[in-house]
Amino acid sequence: MLSTDTVVDNMEGPKYQVENWDEIADVVVIGSGFAGLTAAIEARNAGASVIILEKMKAPGGNSIISDGGIAAAGTPMQEKEGIKDSPELMYSDMLKAGLGLNYPELVREVAGKSNEVLQWSIDYLGVKYLDRVDQFGGHSVPRCYAAFKVSGSTIIKQQLIKVRELGMEVKTQMYLQTFIRDSEGRVRGVLVCDGYDHKNKDSGSDKYIKARKAVILTTGGFGADIAFRVAQDPRLTEKIDTTNKRFATAEALKEALKLGATPVHLSQIQLGPWASPDEKGFGVGPAFSDYIVFLYGIVVDPINGKRIVNELADRKILSDTILNIGQPCIGIADKKAVEQSGWNIDRCLEKGVVKEFNQLEELASYYGLPYDALKATVEKYNNYVKNKLDEEFGKPFPPKTAPMTYPPYYGIRLWPKVHHTMGGVQINVRGQVIDLNQNPIKGLYAAGEVTGGVHGACRLGSCAITDCLVFGRISGRNAAAEEL
Amino acid sequence: MLSTDTVVDNMEGPKYQVENWDEIADVVVIGSGFAGLTAAIEARNAGASVIILEKMKAPGGNSIISDGGIAAAGTPMQEKEGIKDSPELMYSDMLKAGLGLNYPELVREVAGKSNEVLQWSIDYLGVKYLDRVDQFGGHSVPRCYAAFKVSGSTIIKQQLIKVRELGMEVKTQMYLQTFIRDSEGRVRGVLVCDGYDHKNKDSGSDKYIKARKAVILTTGGFGADIAFRVAQDPRLTEKIDTTNKRFATAEALKEALKLGATPVHLSQIQLGPWASPDEKGFGVGPAFSDYIVFLYGIVVDPINGKRIVNELADRKILSDTILNIGQPCIGIADKKAVEQSGWNIDRCLEKGVVKEFNQLEELASYYGLPYDALKATVEKYNNYVKNKLDEEFGKPFPPKTAPMTYPPYYGIRLWPKVHHTMGGVQINVRGQVIDLNQNPIKGLYAAGEVTGGVHGACRLGSCAITDCLVFGRISGRNAAAEEL
Repeated sequence: MLSTDTVVDNMEGPKYQVENWDEIADVVVIGSGFAGLTAAIEARNAGASVIILEKMKAPGGNSIISDGGIAAAGTPMQEKEGIKDSPELMYSDMLKAGLGLNYPELVREVAGKSNEVLQWSIDYLGVKYLDRVDQFGGHSVPRCYAAFKVSGSTIIKQQLIKVRELGMEVKTQMYLQTFIRDSEGRVRGVLVCDGYDHKNKDSGSDKYIKARKAVILTTGGFGADIAFRVAQDPRLTEKIDTTNKRFATAEALKEALKLGATPVHLSQIQLGPWASPDEKGFGVGPAFSDYIVFLYGIVVDPINGKRIVNELADRKILSDTILNIGQPCIGIADKKAVEQSGWNIDRCLEKGVVKEFNQLEELASYYGLPYDALKATVEKYNNYVKNKLDEEFGKPFPPKTAPMTYPPYYGIRLWPKVHHTMGGVQINVRGQVIDLNQNPIKGLYAAGEVTGGVHGACRLGSCAITDCLVFGRISGRNAAAEEL
Repeated sequence: MLSTDTVVDNMEGPKYQVENWDEIADVVVIGSGFAGLTAAIEARNAGASVIILEKMKAPGGNSIISDGGIAAAGTPMQEKEGIKDSPELMYSDMLKAGLGLNYPELVREVAGKSNEVLQWSIDYLGVKYLDRVDQFGGHSVPRCYAAFKVSGSTIIKQQLIKVRELGMEVKTQMYLQTFIRDSEGRVRGVLVCDGYDHKNKDSGSDKYIKARKAVILTTGGFGADIAFRVAQDPRLTEKIDTTNKRFATAEALKEALKLGATPVHLSQIQLGPWASPDEKGFGVGPAFSDYIVFLYGIVVDPINGKRIVNELADRKILSDTILNIGQPCIGIADKKAVEQSGWNIDRCLEKGVVKEFNQLEELASYYGLPYDALKATVEKYNNYVKNKLDEEFGKPFPPKTAPMTYPPYYGIRLWPKVHHTMGGVQINVRGQVIDLNQNPIKGLYAAGEVTGGVHGACRLGSCAITDCLVFGRISGRNAAAEEL
């Protein structure tokens, strides 16, 4: 029935014939955050020539604004402090937070190699960490190490030094347009826009870059991609800010999906309930809300002045509760709470994100709260504190919690921000991207936030950097080991 | 730098040149469940010629084994019973259950047109419903209508009669291999395997079917596709059964994703906690567990004999709790509970899914439960019932709840089964499939369980048929209205 010139081809995604490549290397890394730089370093050390492509004008991606906290289990630092921990315990913490959606084999890699990559970052990269071990929410024991200056830039800087030492460079303003595959479906390179400028979409020109061995996708999350995140969670419109940089968008992830990569957990998007709408991005407010209000204070509905939730519930519960109320809620703590916490809130006050009031009535007036209702709420809460039983929400009061009676009172408006996208392309333990039929896409690896499966429904704080380093190393090594 | 013969093409998915088509119609519908037959009928009534393709040997898809319950708000039946309801209330119930992940505009269509499609099914299709209005979990008021014989086959039969009346037929054993698009990316038809036999994968031959106006994808969910569902929720291995037919697989959904359709909510997979591992599929056990045990009885851990959860928690909580325990839990009720419920459990006993015991000790022995612990659990529970306060799990006791003291005792093993996949391809309110850049894919519509967005994180019982009928009609009409 069919004429012989009928062309039928079931291969997913675009195919190309490229006769002349502009540049060639064994391994092409897309993205220059924690995962990308790690992958590049490892691939280079395994003998591969490497090209690193970054769409922005500076390297470091969104990683550079992270707080630089990395989780690791069974470390010398823990031993020194007498903390008993193990990869098994970290594994079970991550799976519990992930509500069982995590890929067990990926979590096992991350937890199992967590100490190895932490030591690698110290010994090989030269990263300095603060002399302390912190415990973040959801971790059973203290296992979080803060990079010097409590900033991801500390790690990125050391990685960039190593990149240069190894004779590599980060090519900036190189925007991935699409992957290029051969007739057998193997990824052979990329088409990029060279000279990309996010302020001028017409800038730049096409460039074809060949990867003799493999392409590694390390382009991060899509927290700032409003259209893409709204498709997964329609609540996350432009009315919701993000703690991410504006360029944390989905275009490279979408190109991978067009190739037939299996999408995993895309609708699992983490919001930070500690964020304030009165500043952009992550800001300074979380230092007050997350470390003082949630522990020793209350969060109230702006309309009726009543508490809305157990303030120590997890990020998802807090964020969903505030979103359901439909407008920013008010976090409140008194002077004693601030003192108990041991934290300094000067920067929060300077920036005007946290406000100080001599009387509760002033606070109510400023935020438009009904004062009588707020007063009743505080009195009721203070009774719960005295009786050590929160009859309304079952909040487990931390040891130092005191009734809120010491002025001045401090207030912050709270409205969640998109913080991390747990979903992305499916990978296996070798870091290979997996297609819709559960086979690896030849010549394509991925690591970090662009992948899905490690964190399941909920990423624990400080586990992202561990993930980036572990799978950055794995994908870099395996990409370099591909046959030519 | 590049030679002129470089081929660059950014269009997603496979493209084809087909010179000779085997068959041609205005509209090609893939699938013959509730959504597909509805779409075909509406497209035909709008003047289009229609081909309906079904991969199995008989029409009806998974719909035919559903319980035939359809939700509708603001109906004459409700008015007769004095039930106050509205599309707004149904909308808010669906959004609440969906945890806000639902697409509001799609839910509004479903709730707003729910009564219209119910009446259409009665007046136009001739479907008979039982003379009662039921209330299922998550619905604020009774708004669920059970098709005669409490079976989806009642609706499918009437749809098939209408299909024949309209001069159409369902072409069976036609398996979608891929979509065919023209050089502008418009879907122009499909390549199918004609003569498909799931028991013999080599059977059948290629057939090219052209859709002059559009293809409508109505291929249902992927609850029985182990590889695809495990990629979204790694817990759902072959150890978890499904209430779906074995052919509820993802191949057509995957073809749509290869075209660049946006995947929505794929990791939101609903499990039925009322299912028993001692029978296949949906079975008869849920009549005992869902309508008797959860209301008036208890569910215990098989190892320690302790209760595991508020037995009236939602499907997700119950299922996750049992999965976390890692082996089937035991649902227990006494004679009085069965009597209070008003249900007959003879079939459950005949099939051996529910077991009867004269003494609690016998029950413990049969299921390998520690008797002393179980006895203590029942005594504690009975005290909670007497005091009308469940101190452990806060279960809200239904009015008729009595202490469990009346033998015989009945037991059932409980292990969740995959029941519904909330995720699928993104559609807009016109039923068009949406691509990764948020544009409609020309010539492609979809309706029913293959789409994502209507139910969000959790589908309420009886809302699926409403969805299928509402978006079946919408997609059928809009496909027929496409320009030639």
